Amino acid sequence: MKRFDVVIIGGGPGGVTTALSARNTYPEKSIALIRKEKIALIPCGIPYIFHSLKTVEDDILPDKPLEKNQVELIVDEVTDVNPVSKMIKLKSGEEVEYDKLVLAIGSKPFVPPIPGIDKDCVYFVKKDIEYLRNTKECIDKVERVAIIGGGFVGVEVADELLRKGKKVILIEKLPSLLSLSMDEEFGNMVVELMKERGAEVIAGISVKEIAGREKVEKIVLEDGREFPVDAVIVAAGYRPNIELAEKMGIKVDRRFGILVDEYMRTSIKDVFAAGDCTAKRHFLTGEYTKLMLASTAMAQGRLAGSNLFEIKVIKEFPGALGTFSTKICDTAFASVGITESDAKKAGIDYVVGTNETVDRHPGSLPNTSKIFMKLIFARYSHQLLGAQIKGGVSVGEMINMLSVMIQNRMTDMEIDTLQIGTHPLLTSSPIAYPVINATVSAIMKWYKK
Amino acid sequence: MKRFDVVIIGGGPGGVTTALSARNTYPEKSIALIRKEKIALIPCGIPYIFHSLKTVEDDILPDKPLEKNQVELIVDEVTDVNPVSKMIKLKSGEEVEYDKLVLAIGSKPFVPPIPGIDKDCVYFVKKDIEYLRNTKECIDKVERVAIIGGGFVGVEVADELLRKGKKVILIEKLPSLLSLSMDEEFGNMVVELMKERGAEVIAGISVKEIAGREKVEKIVLEDGREFPVDAVIVAAGYRPNIELAEKMGIKVDRRFGILVDEYMRTSIKDVFAAGDCTAKRHFLTGEYTKLMLASTAMAQGRLAGSNLFEIKVIKEFPGALGTFSTKICDTAFASVGITESDAKKAGIDYVVGTNETVDRHPGSLPNTSKIFMKLIFARYSHQLLGAQIKGGVSVGEMINMLSVMIQNRMTDMEIDTLQIGTHPLLTSSPIAYPVINATVSAIMKWYKK
Repeated sequence: MKRFDVVIIGGGPGGVTTALSARNTYPEKSIALIRKEKIALIPCGIPYIFHSLKTVEDDILPDKPLEKNQVELIVDEVTDVNPVSKMIKLKSGEEVEYDKLVLAIGSKPFVPPIPGIDKDCVYFVKKDIEYLRNTKECIDKVERVAIIGGGFVGVEVADELLRKGKKVILIEKLPSLLSLSMDEEFGNMVVELMKERGAEVIAGISVKEIAGREKVEKIVLEDGREFPVDAVIVAAGYRPNIELAEKMGIKVDRRFGILVDEYMRTSIKDVFAAGDCTAKRHFLTGEYTKLMLASTAMAQGRLAGSNLFEIKVIKEFPGALGTFSTKICDTAFASVGITESDAKKAGIDYVVGTNETVDRHPGSLPNTSKIFMKLIFARYSHQLLGAQIKGGVSVGEMINMLSVMIQNRMTDMEIDTLQIGTHPLLTSSPIAYPVINATVSAIMKWYKK
Repeated sequence: MKRFDVVIIGGGPGGVTTALSARNTYPEKSIALIRKEKIALIPCGIPYIFHSLKTVEDDILPDKPLEKNQVELIVDEVTDVNPVSKMIKLKSGEEVEYDKLVLAIGSKPFVPPIPGIDKDCVYFVKKDIEYLRNTKECIDKVERVAIIGGGFVGVEVADELLRKGKKVILIEKLPSLLSLSMDEEFGNMVVELMKERGAEVIAGISVKEIAGREKVEKIVLEDGREFPVDAVIVAAGYRPNIELAEKMGIKVDRRFGILVDEYMRTSIKDVFAAGDCTAKRHFLTGEYTKLMLASTAMAQGRLAGSNLFEIKVIKEFPGALGTFSTKICDTAFASVGITESDAKKAGIDYVVGTNETVDRHPGSLPNTSKIFMKLIFARYSHQLLGAQIKGGVSVGEMINMLSVMIQNRMTDMEIDTLQIGTHPLLTSSPIAYPVINATVSAIMKWYKK
């Protein structure tokens, strides 16, 4: 029987970050990380195994940081945890004792209740190297692929398959694509880009049936339309893994995940949780949210890891703030915070500012991309609530700047007078800088009202 | 005689921003902008007229925003202002009356006291379209060009001339390049890049003489070395334009510029100033600083423009925070706040965190660049004081995120637990995100001390 001061279950970004933070903060403690996968993957790289990366192996999350930080890696499956005796049972028969335990047990793909979803050649986007190898092998061979789900993962997979020359049909039951993080006008831009590349995109209609004998042969929509396909990829979101926590007697919300307090402590002493498996309230609305992102998992992991034995980092987890970015058909999209549609649903009175410009100056310089930016401010408190951008690659860092603004609860007036660096070959012109100018456009709306 | 509620003198980024902010905040007021140049230029684009832009005309700052916002443009030179009668005299003989006046009269190139600096074919980087046309015409024809001054402008011009196939010698009297905004190790990276492209780079030695008959023929260094050249470009910094303010009886600091208060008001009632012409204290050290940047000018312009008739934006100008970015030999460099060397000079006890990674994940994806990041934190208060980055193009927005962090006076602990978005095709991996990891590296240094 082995014994460790700290045991982390789960080898994704949340688990690894917890382990490294624990190592940094408590150099003298023994730390182990248990995961069932022989090889861990970079979750957000998975859509890219279909084309941009040559093989699934190119998306491996390396174990080197664990080794370098004296975190013992145990590849095994946890079958049971006794939180009183603090003993973990493993599938191999081994037992591991802990002083502090962290559940970073992640999430699994949601399986929508569509008749025929269990047919052959229907795949999910799982974080499992063997499964993905099989998926890729099948997809490589076929011609027509349906993707069910038009969130980030579905759209990224569709883009990859288009690049491979596949015939792609993308189906989203909500009225627009990426609708959990971007408003309709941005979703429509994505539709346009995908259609230009030859995809069929259908939004606002559910799949009635995945039809075929053993193997999928066609997709039948609620409106009766039928589309012959050779394979289906389902990207309909994820659900938290809560089974182990429930078995241990930890309080969970069945829909949103393991309940944790401000320092990632569960309802059982000395047991913490971090990442996709936890129930998270939204940074801005305070409501439980389905957001599952590495950025959130890692912020939680850093808090959990630092605070295992004493509260060292005195900063409660402030709730999940979705910060997304992606590149679809060579155009970058990014968002943070809440959308206009979220604000309406939450009953928040808001003001929208927009700006359209280019990301070099003058715009005649090479590698210039157009930028379109939308900012949402609270009318009452003037705080920045959300941002959405379409543009070139630097949008990936620009959204992080906007995320830092929201996390600092900055107002329109504070943003308006910021000192922002610009350079002809790297950014918009100082006079056309979109974050400032979209802010000014919002100020003028409430001001002139 | 014309009369305007607001008159702005100067058509650079500071002047234009003041005009637009005044228009946004005071829709009913009449506004005029007086500038002496028929055509205004984008200041930070000037180095690129030598190669990346086809002509000087490609770097024009358009007048359209002024027209669109009903700001009357008067192209004329101000010869005198009477702040008692509030009358402006113009070279054309016209007179203009104002209620509120803003001096955004900018800066001019510093002329170092080097014997021979007045010879033919010695040029300065002036914001004057006619002068630049002549400069470009001469440089296009010659083979060997010396650049005096290894700050951003000098290095950018050198890079452009290397691309044109010129034989370039760059001379900086301080021990390393870009030394006002980056530490020596970054300056040395720039030297390496420029040498690889065939430049001669000499740092730590002054120019003793620019020799030749009428025309420059050679550069003589203090150590006796001589270099034959056909032309010289001097990029030895800028000095504030203060003559008009002095003539009006406004209090100035001869070295740093026009003295202004927290709301950009000068010592004379109803006269404001913004931009390069103002004396600015540093955001972090409180000392007067030579920083002259569009980002600072525009933040001041927005404050001045909004607060001309009443204090509407209640946020004092907090001091200048230099936020720089550039691209040298296809590698981006950026910095914000103070350097390690600045911290030493100011007697601030600091901790350095560094990180090296790649800006895509996995790093096998196309268009991946290496990133090297250095962060400087105050040991006592834990605040972020400065950041320096070498990397790919998204460094231009990443430095703005770091600038927002400094402007919010964020500490290492607050940065460590931020939620930062990442994407395989756009950013570093969440586990390798350099801002977080360099912060952790700093925390571990003071923590383990």
